Amino acid sequence: MERVVLAARPDGEPDASHFRLEPLVLPPPAAGEVLTRTLWLSLDPYMRGRMDAGRSYAAPVAVGATMVGQVVAEVQQSRDPRFAPGDLVVAPSGWATHGLAPGAALSRVPAGVPPQAALGVLGMPGMTAWVGLTRIAAAQAGETVLISAATGAVGSVAAQLAKARGMRVVGIAGGAEKCRIAVEEFGCDACLDHRGATPRDLYRAIRDAAPAGVQVYFENVGGAVLEAVLPAMADFGRIALCGAIAWYSRDDGGPSAAALWGTILTRRLRVEGFIVTDHWAQFPAFLAEAAPMVADGRLRWRETVAEGLAAAPAAFLAMLKGGNLGKQLVRVG
Amino acid sequence: MERVVLAARPDGEPDASHFRLEPLVLPPPAAGEVLTRTLWLSLDPYMRGRMDAGRSYAAPVAVGATMVGQVVAEVQQSRDPRFAPGDLVVAPSGWATHGLAPGAALSRVPAGVPPQAALGVLGMPGMTAWVGLTRIAAAQAGETVLISAATGAVGSVAAQLAKARGMRVVGIAGGAEKCRIAVEEFGCDACLDHRGATPRDLYRAIRDAAPAGVQVYFENVGGAVLEAVLPAMADFGRIALCGAIAWYSRDDGGPSAAALWGTILTRRLRVEGFIVTDHWAQFPAFLAEAAPMVADGRLRWRETVAEGLAAAPAAFLAMLKGGNLGKQLVRVG
Repeated sequence: MERVVLAARPDGEPDASHFRLEPLVLPPPAAGEVLTRTLWLSLDPYMRGRMDAGRSYAAPVAVGATMVGQVVAEVQQSRDPRFAPGDLVVAPSGWATHGLAPGAALSRVPAGVPPQAALGVLGMPGMTAWVGLTRIAAAQAGETVLISAATGAVGSVAAQLAKARGMRVVGIAGGAEKCRIAVEEFGCDACLDHRGATPRDLYRAIRDAAPAGVQVYFENVGGAVLEAVLPAMADFGRIALCGAIAWYSRDDGGPSAAALWGTILTRRLRVEGFIVTDHWAQFPAFLAEAAPMVADGRLRWRETVAEGLAAAPAAFLAMLKGGNLGKQLVRVG
Repeated sequence: MERVVLAARPDGEPDASHFRLEPLVLPPPAAGEVLTRTLWLSLDPYMRGRMDAGRSYAAPVAVGATMVGQVVAEVQQSRDPRFAPGDLVVAPSGWATHGLAPGAALSRVPAGVPPQAALGVLGMPGMTAWVGLTRIAAAQAGETVLISAATGAVGSVAAQLAKARGMRVVGIAGGAEKCRIAVEEFGCDACLDHRGATPRDLYRAIRDAAPAGVQVYFENVGGAVLEAVLPAMADFGRIALCGAIAWYSRDDGGPSAAALWGTILTRRLRVEGFIVTDHWAQFPAFLAEAAPMVADGRLRWRETVAEGLAAAPAAFLAMLKGGNLGKQLVRVG
């Protein structure tokens, strides 16, 4: 049994030295607990925030503690009557080969899809896309929706849900290949490559793709991309603020706060930050929309898979720089 | 007849050289038009934005054109049957001793209050306070509302409306005297002086005054005050973004955009920019609440009065630095 712990807090960009693989020792399950063996570990941008000290919406990971995260796992021993050895579950095991948790903390993997979809398109990232698009931005058919990180685990679902709901969808992604996939696989009407583009170049491309302005911006990145998006927002536009990966390790770059505030004011924008866990009660409503779309092939996804728990830090660091395509996973078991 | 025109566009802080007093020539009123003589000119922070080129919610003032603004005026000649010489009206005459406008652009000054109240507590600034508090922030009884520029024409009304609606009200103002007035005259439960305070000092003062966090921030200033407010916001707090006077001439100072975006995200804030003119259809609802409060003395105001049109530029420049108390007016006629 092994785990990856936070070895030290990064000051700026994290690197391999901030993680450490070490043996894991777990006791046998107590009454109500379930011991699981990890098959798939989900890597998500929010984990970068948990590496820092300081107040956020969740407590930081302590130095020396297991990095947090959701996994798909197989039940090995169960002292909760609802679970039996061999069951596939989603568990909060973190970056570890095994986990021990109360049965109440586990949920079953949906049938009919590869189990790791429970960490992506039908899990937290998919639900995040749905909440941001439908509940936070309240995007309507006919509107133009701009989505940054459009091939990411969240962005790719947001794009397809938006398209299915009758919106015009413009993606932003890093590189020509991601942009091709955003259009051909995820149904974006257009996708703009931010790599090598100045904010002014990217702004012009957005204006060309959305001549009447951007009614809804699904924000995943911040930084220079946000600087380009701001002047392209339509009056009364909404920004669903889901993430700002460009700013997780540095706060330079991007628009000034004055420009941000000035645009929100003069364009009368509504900006709302959200965290998917606040909306978990609506998970059934999300599944009711997304599961049939997965079943009939209208909701597609991509995965980038790293092999073995020891590969998790490098895969995570690459993901923070956009090195992944779609959902970043680690095949652990 | 005289007017003040925009002599040149400022690059940063405006000064007296950006304005010019010159003769005004108006033709006699055509059919449907009304000629008015200005009694009171309203000076408002939004006018700073109109001095700049570039897209905003309204067109910039052209160089050489009369500075925009609302006035209280007396009708001199009328070719609109609804108005007669001697009537007191609110008119869009700008910074000028006289104005010529279609009758449809005029509204009557309410009876029972000093006529200049139609430019302040019962006019655009009062309505702005009401819209921001009740419609944009949707502030509720029992919540803690923080108001910057709390003795200003907008802030002082927001404070009193909030108090009347059962909220806890914390003001921020520049100087001990303004803070005293915010508490003693405008009913703030506390008022914090930002003059000479670092953002960290001011943050601590806000936390002391609002230990459970700020549920609603009525934002008029931006800059260093915003930097202090951000970490004091409660989860799910709302920011009604009405103005950012600290940033109208410079965009340095205050929080980074990354900090702004990060706080909106992790605290799940909703930030909404608004312009009162978009909400003008609700003016009767505002008056129904505010006019009785004025009549029975529950809604009070302060004025700073400059004498004569030629004094308007200096009064405006002083107001941008917080030199006024309450509503800034120019007594023109």
